[in-house]
Amino acid sequence: MQKRKAILVILDGLGDRASEELDYKTPLQYARTPNLDRIAKQSIVGLMDSIAPGIRAGSDTSHLNILGYDPYEVYTGRGPFEAAGLDMDLEPGDIAFRCNFATVDDNLVVVDRRAGRIKEGTDKLLEEINGMKIEDVTVFVKPGVEHRAALVLRGPGLSPAVSDVDPHDVGVRIHEARPLKPEAEKTARILNEFVRRAHAILKEHPVNKEREKRGEKPANILLPRGAGVVPHIEKFEKKHDMRAACIVGTPLIRGICKLAGVTSIDVPGATGGYDTDMMAKMRAVLENLEKYDFILVNIKAPDLAGHDMQPRKKVEVIERIDEAVGYLFDNLPEDAVLVVTADHSTPCSVGDHSGDPVPIMIHARDARREGEEFNEISVLRGSLRIRGSDLMNIIKNITNRAEKFGA
Amino acid sequence: MQKRKAILVILDGLGDRASEELDYKTPLQYARTPNLDRIAKQSIVGLMDSIAPGIRAGSDTSHLNILGYDPYEVYTGRGPFEAAGLDMDLEPGDIAFRCNFATVDDNLVVVDRRAGRIKEGTDKLLEEINGMKIEDVTVFVKPGVEHRAALVLRGPGLSPAVSDVDPHDVGVRIHEARPLKPEAEKTARILNEFVRRAHAILKEHPVNKEREKRGEKPANILLPRGAGVVPHIEKFEKKHDMRAACIVGTPLIRGICKLAGVTSIDVPGATGGYDTDMMAKMRAVLENLEKYDFILVNIKAPDLAGHDMQPRKKVEVIERIDEAVGYLFDNLPEDAVLVVTADHSTPCSVGDHSGDPVPIMIHARDARREGEEFNEISVLRGSLRIRGSDLMNIIKNITNRAEKFGA
Repeated sequence: MQKRKAILVILDGLGDRASEELDYKTPLQYARTPNLDRIAKQSIVGLMDSIAPGIRAGSDTSHLNILGYDPYEVYTGRGPFEAAGLDMDLEPGDIAFRCNFATVDDNLVVVDRRAGRIKEGTDKLLEEINGMKIEDVTVFVKPGVEHRAALVLRGPGLSPAVSDVDPHDVGVRIHEARPLKPEAEKTARILNEFVRRAHAILKEHPVNKEREKRGEKPANILLPRGAGVVPHIEKFEKKHDMRAACIVGTPLIRGICKLAGVTSIDVPGATGGYDTDMMAKMRAVLENLEKYDFILVNIKAPDLAGHDMQPRKKVEVIERIDEAVGYLFDNLPEDAVLVVTADHSTPCSVGDHSGDPVPIMIHARDARREGEEFNEISVLRGSLRIRGSDLMNIIKNITNRAEKFGA
Repeated sequence: MQKRKAILVILDGLGDRASEELDYKTPLQYARTPNLDRIAKQSIVGLMDSIAPGIRAGSDTSHLNILGYDPYEVYTGRGPFEAAGLDMDLEPGDIAFRCNFATVDDNLVVVDRRAGRIKEGTDKLLEEINGMKIEDVTVFVKPGVEHRAALVLRGPGLSPAVSDVDPHDVGVRIHEARPLKPEAEKTARILNEFVRRAHAILKEHPVNKEREKRGEKPANILLPRGAGVVPHIEKFEKKHDMRAACIVGTPLIRGICKLAGVTSIDVPGATGGYDTDMMAKMRAVLENLEKYDFILVNIKAPDLAGHDMQPRKKVEVIERIDEAVGYLFDNLPEDAVLVVTADHSTPCSVGDHSGDPVPIMIHARDARREGEEFNEISVLRGSLRIRGSDLMNIIKNITNRAEKFGA
């Protein structure tokens, strides 16, 4: 039994609902997808609830579940995955937050939650703040894209059960972090002290003085939110006995991969936006298939179209994906397994993630040939009616890597 | 994202098996149901195990599970739900029983388990008994329909683990309640004492003297059965963040709704029998939809036909339901969600509830269009293969009320 390699293509937010604008078809039903349909005819097909029926999954929790990590166990908040996505070195037990650089007035009332979408200088702004000591806790901060940053607290007796400092609104005063459980009192105190000290440093910082001179809003405060504890996550390679890599634009998903010890492959032109170079991603998969047993590729664009509530845009994105996946399929080594699915639905009628199940197809040379077309309705003829947590077992089965249970 | 309202139509005992009399179709397959079929074409469809595959659900346990309450956790016996259905005020920890007024001879041998199906005077018979004190326990009794009543014991150290006093047969002596676990010894002792004292009062009661004079059987004893502890049930509105009402004839299901804090709407002509005014129920749904986010309607008639083992009667009932549900569908606000399903199967070939799964369809304006006809076989083309415990999550998803798990 030759062990096979597997490629998992996650078309972010692909699943949808009946769109009035598309004759009550879903964008995937409506789109012309000759390649996806061709693959479906040589695949087992069906539907997947990335977490459980009706559960509205985030991209983070769904990727975790799909990769074999129970999100109800490891996911306490988004912070740790964002921080990992910025390549911060994390230790289990660290408390991590997402942060925004924001602009506040003298009364700590938020003027701009994104500090004029600051683009440059955030690394300098954080220089003096990173490594700060508060009581017995060390503070790490790292800038992300534009106004984004991540914050990590490391020390004894910390808890993720603290409320956000970010008021999620302008024209209101920043919030005091409150302990949501008694054991989080210390964390709240330290977080508030951090915000105070960072504000004192930022408001006098030369980068901000320059901004003000230019008439730009100063990035004079950091607003933490989304506290979570860095979980202990068994490395993917150990858990599944596959050397794994990912080609992923979204920092959040990169963070999940990093915490799972999955190597991130950078692909120039892979932006995570509408304009992402999908063909470049597929070429990168093929080039790296020698080195790895499992490659995860995430294409974010369908999710964007869903959030933008643009069914025709989603159709267009899907037709571009069809071409890229067709290229990948045609150039696969004969014995490779190709899985195409989504992490969740992002229906254009909703404009956000929904709990509707997503289509899935799993191609292998000898896979039962169940499919006809690749869309939410046509895959119902297939055998798969699974949860995200089933997927790695199914992949290990079809790549001839599963351990036999019994004799 | 506009939050939507949902109507859950439970066609009690709708599911069935292949009926020889109906060319081996199920009654739902055989019936002419143009409206249900029309709705199916605009719905996600499939099958539901109201509890789990093969589990023969009661109406009570299935309704609990469907409404999001684990029956294995909250259901220790039927008593509490019957008592709640009679509008008795219950407290978590109370031990409740169903009771029959029955007729016994001088040796406590049961002559008639229903006391000649007594119709009047049961309220008077209970006047002196209600509020009785036995040791440190207070006893509450309330009459139900005809020979039925409910009994509640309130006090410290009680347990539902007691056997029935009702021997469930005539020509035999009433049973002594026995503790089924050591901790139920006190409860058994008090229950036996209650039966003894109530018998002493009832056999001398003027209402019974009158009955005997008229040649009717005296209701000279109360036979408790179905002990259960009143569970702590989180209010539906709190649990699901929806203001909820129910239109339900069966006292047992009303009891479940009452314990869950779901308002019961009385509909004149809604009897819970074959002759129930289904159109009146549907009109009541539409009239109340402004005030509530979630309305549960139960139509009992298909279950009756199943228990009566009358497939043609069940077909007839289903065709009347088709008309009523069609009326409801045609008058729904555009954005409302309509769910049609059953609490369990009651196959005419069995004459009782069975563990066969039930058909389900969920209509929303943007629901994926999966269905063709609404029956046990045709819905297999759809995506749903769920358990009762999934349903509220799916309803919250499609009404845009689900919380996102993750980001």
